[in-house]
Amino acid sequence: MGFTIGLDYGTNSARALVVDCADGREIGTAVVDYPSGNQGVLLNPADHHLARQRPADYVDALERATLLALQAAKLAEPLFSADQVIGIGMDGTGSSPIPVDANNLPLANAPEFFDNPNAQCWLWKDHTGIPEATAITDTARRLRPQYLAKIGGTYSSEWFWAKVWHCLKVDPEVFDAAYSWVELSDFIPAVLAGVTDPTTIMRGVCMAGHKALYADDWGGLPDKEFLSALDPKLADLRDRLYDKAHDASASAGTLCPEWAAKLGLPVGIPIAIGEMDVHYGAIGCGVDEGTLVKVIGTSTCDCAVVSADQAMADIPGICGIVKGAILPGYFGVEAGQSAVGDIFKWFVEGVLEEASLHGKLTDEAAALRPGQSGLLALDWNNGNRTILVDQSLTGLLLGQTLYTTKGEIYRALIEATAFGARAIVDRIREYGVPVERIVCSGGIAEKNPLLMQIYADVTGCEMRVSRSSQSCALGSAIGAAVIAGAHPDFKTAQAAMTGLKEITYKPDPENQTVYQQLNALYLELHDAFGGVSKSADLGHVMKDLLALKAKQSR
Amino acid sequence: MGFTIGLDYGTNSARALVVDCADGREIGTAVVDYPSGNQGVLLNPADHHLARQRPADYVDALERATLLALQAAKLAEPLFSADQVIGIGMDGTGSSPIPVDANNLPLANAPEFFDNPNAQCWLWKDHTGIPEATAITDTARRLRPQYLAKIGGTYSSEWFWAKVWHCLKVDPEVFDAAYSWVELSDFIPAVLAGVTDPTTIMRGVCMAGHKALYADDWGGLPDKEFLSALDPKLADLRDRLYDKAHDASASAGTLCPEWAAKLGLPVGIPIAIGEMDVHYGAIGCGVDEGTLVKVIGTSTCDCAVVSADQAMADIPGICGIVKGAILPGYFGVEAGQSAVGDIFKWFVEGVLEEASLHGKLTDEAAALRPGQSGLLALDWNNGNRTILVDQSLTGLLLGQTLYTTKGEIYRALIEATAFGARAIVDRIREYGVPVERIVCSGGIAEKNPLLMQIYADVTGCEMRVSRSSQSCALGSAIGAAVIAGAHPDFKTAQAAMTGLKEITYKPDPENQTVYQQLNALYLELHDAFGGVSKSADLGHVMKDLLALKAKQSR
Repeated sequence: MGFTIGLDYGTNSARALVVDCADGREIGTAVVDYPSGNQGVLLNPADHHLARQRPADYVDALERATLLALQAAKLAEPLFSADQVIGIGMDGTGSSPIPVDANNLPLANAPEFFDNPNAQCWLWKDHTGIPEATAITDTARRLRPQYLAKIGGTYSSEWFWAKVWHCLKVDPEVFDAAYSWVELSDFIPAVLAGVTDPTTIMRGVCMAGHKALYADDWGGLPDKEFLSALDPKLADLRDRLYDKAHDASASAGTLCPEWAAKLGLPVGIPIAIGEMDVHYGAIGCGVDEGTLVKVIGTSTCDCAVVSADQAMADIPGICGIVKGAILPGYFGVEAGQSAVGDIFKWFVEGVLEEASLHGKLTDEAAALRPGQSGLLALDWNNGNRTILVDQSLTGLLLGQTLYTTKGEIYRALIEATAFGARAIVDRIREYGVPVERIVCSGGIAEKNPLLMQIYADVTGCEMRVSRSSQSCALGSAIGAAVIAGAHPDFKTAQAAMTGLKEITYKPDPENQTVYQQLNALYLELHDAFGGVSKSADLGHVMKDLLALKAKQSR
Repeated sequence: MGFTIGLDYGTNSARALVVDCADGREIGTAVVDYPSGNQGVLLNPADHHLARQRPADYVDALERATLLALQAAKLAEPLFSADQVIGIGMDGTGSSPIPVDANNLPLANAPEFFDNPNAQCWLWKDHTGIPEATAITDTARRLRPQYLAKIGGTYSSEWFWAKVWHCLKVDPEVFDAAYSWVELSDFIPAVLAGVTDPTTIMRGVCMAGHKALYADDWGGLPDKEFLSALDPKLADLRDRLYDKAHDASASAGTLCPEWAAKLGLPVGIPIAIGEMDVHYGAIGCGVDEGTLVKVIGTSTCDCAVVSADQAMADIPGICGIVKGAILPGYFGVEAGQSAVGDIFKWFVEGVLEEASLHGKLTDEAAALRPGQSGLLALDWNNGNRTILVDQSLTGLLLGQTLYTTKGEIYRALIEATAFGARAIVDRIREYGVPVERIVCSGGIAEKNPLLMQIYADVTGCEMRVSRSSQSCALGSAIGAAVIAGAHPDFKTAQAAMTGLKEITYKPDPENQTVYQQLNALYLELHDAFGGVSKSADLGHVMKDLLALKAKQSR
């Protein structure tokens, strides 16, 4: 049946995976860290909203990770040969747009832009475009309410147009020099395919639909009149972007001779359309109607699918419902939390400044009962992606006494992310998206049984873990397997190539009861600070927590 | 003119000070740590409300601290002799009641009660009596509203009757064995005077008035009908307490032969009436109309005086206005914050677990501008003594991003205590207590210019520091000097024996403007979580903080 390569571009590193199309066996893998900045991210200490990445790091990682994964495959299975690779798939973070010149070369490759942060890739978690996102929301509310209905009501600073427009405002020189802007997940497939004209790149509907207001309903990207209302230069840019975006039934092209030579792979093998990391991750986790996939990493992304056989209602606060995103023939429903692992990492590495503490704190946190610490936190250190769609929010911790320990705070932070996760599940269920079980993927899901149990207790759902530790890369490889014809469709490919680990985290009824109370308090804080409630009565919150603490300490 | 000894019983240690009555020179001092428990405090890990202290530690410290201070005085001034000591004064934390037997011996001295936490001194910060405090407030509201008017509207779990009643409820054996209950600040003078019948102890009006609902208006302690409504056994106890409490114009007795011999002091020298530590501290800082004294330590106590020549209005939320407390001839106005230094200590030693970090964090905090961190905290880790009078409150920290540092959190905690301090100043001013300047005392005031400047910027008041580092002990010594006749009255004694350090912290107008905005946000959180506002609109809080952060980071 052959093998495919799945590439996964994360926040700090890129991974390549060699997968057997027959059974999903992962026979070789390699991870390459991006060499630039702070763990691959270019930061600005004076502006915590800024997060950029060097495009050259991506291209460098493409070559190195693929070659290392092929070597690893050969080492593991001496009979394996690179000739047996029948396709390549790729996923990446998003929206992470890169300004490119007319030859599809990143502006940042040019010496005059090398050190300019605005000429780099604008990483998904860059929030510098908050004012532009607000203006886009306001303008759409006035002129194109239909745009907002599809994205949960609010355009996010994490998305394409907010970033591009912010660049135009703060650095017109970069904006003018950019012939086009390409999402990372469209850029790498285009590099592999040897595309040298940005307007001919096969763009994925994931990024287009979820991040750039693309929809067939209104003929693709936002119309020029709307874009002109933001800035005429954005309307001009539209001509240099794309008219049509594609789901995973299309191919992004075939491997060009130059990259075939670099990678030692057959020329002309098909390249799958690029998708957002978590969308291919959802596929790698076996996403299907009724199964919510959570990819838990620095942030989370939650993916569900609903058959496109009939029309689907918009869901307020759910930032994306896009036909063809994730699986062809389904609406892809995407939600997420702006920070999860990043919050634990911040507390341990940023505040306590001792990375080795994660294990000890997990042990301390695991020794506590729900409610025993008296603490309650909001998981908004990086804003709230779903369901408030508001980056101008921050963290909150409440309930501290003079005896509060760091282990208690650590647990409260985990719980906060669990309440955030539940808010998403509750919202999409309310609008008819079935959630019968949750399948998780990512290092945290595999290595942190405490977090998984808390999520089960808080959401009331059985939590499972994807068999593959590389669900995103695996999903990309599945996309490649389908486009290469190894399987007739995604359902067949998923059945053959994905699976679950044995462990099941079942909700504990006693803990569920306590978390029900804590969740109600979380929602009061959520609505009060999120601006949902304009007349909050919070005088009981600390007292309720103290009462619960007293009860759970007995 | 002679010398007096001032004794000061703090939370973790006791201090003795030998003072020259002519000019306030402190010629010898010694501090003795209480040997028991956690830095002198007996805790219960399962109940953070509990804080007790061994009475034997107090008596032990009395002897050791006094002897060491006398030795130190002799060493510093070889011509000094213990014969020149003309009086002793003492102050202590409160309300810190001790159950004693009919001979004025602490129950905890008896072997059967030695290890029983309920037979120990119930330290001021013990909050186990929260339910009883609530019930006392409710009962008084029904039966004796005049009681509540004098204490700001709410009886506190830190006070005498809540503690004694809680003991009766949870440990009737201890309650029944106790012939009487004596405040620490009445107990030590009684020990020095050799009083062996608790009913004959000269009780200070500070503790009686501020903590035990004593007032001449209603004939002393609460009447038996009221106490019976709580529990008939409390009404019985009233007969074994006291009918009359005294201001500092009265003497607590004279030094008995046994203790004169132990301490090497003249038999029969007068002992000043015991006062609460901060009340004598206020005297040692030169308290006068228009001067607010803040003793900043683990918690703060704020003291002001208003001439008793005319009647004074009650002040809602101000837990004590007592005629004769602090200075004879004045209303003593007492307010306070349940935790100040304790909050910084908790964060550094309890969470970060590295006591040595205080200096580094202070430097990091000092490098920030007001509002630059985007953080805002409530200073309620140990409840709110003034102006909410509610121990069932907890800490809150808000505004965290993924880049928030511990130095930023440290500054936010200092600022939170400053906003808490300002709430007190604003409230008493509103009810006619003049506050023209603030004189501070305590290690934090002397060693933390950052905190002092922040307090000046937040309150808009000039902040001064008492010349003496031992204002409480100095005030006790002044009380002894007056009672011994070295000075005709407190005014004269204060003029001779107190002073200020040279440094003046003046409000910085730019910082004041920013803190004005932050204080408004603090008050919104204060009112929302304190139950003052039942319809809070908090959706703007995080956004305002982010905007201020952006502005102040420029």
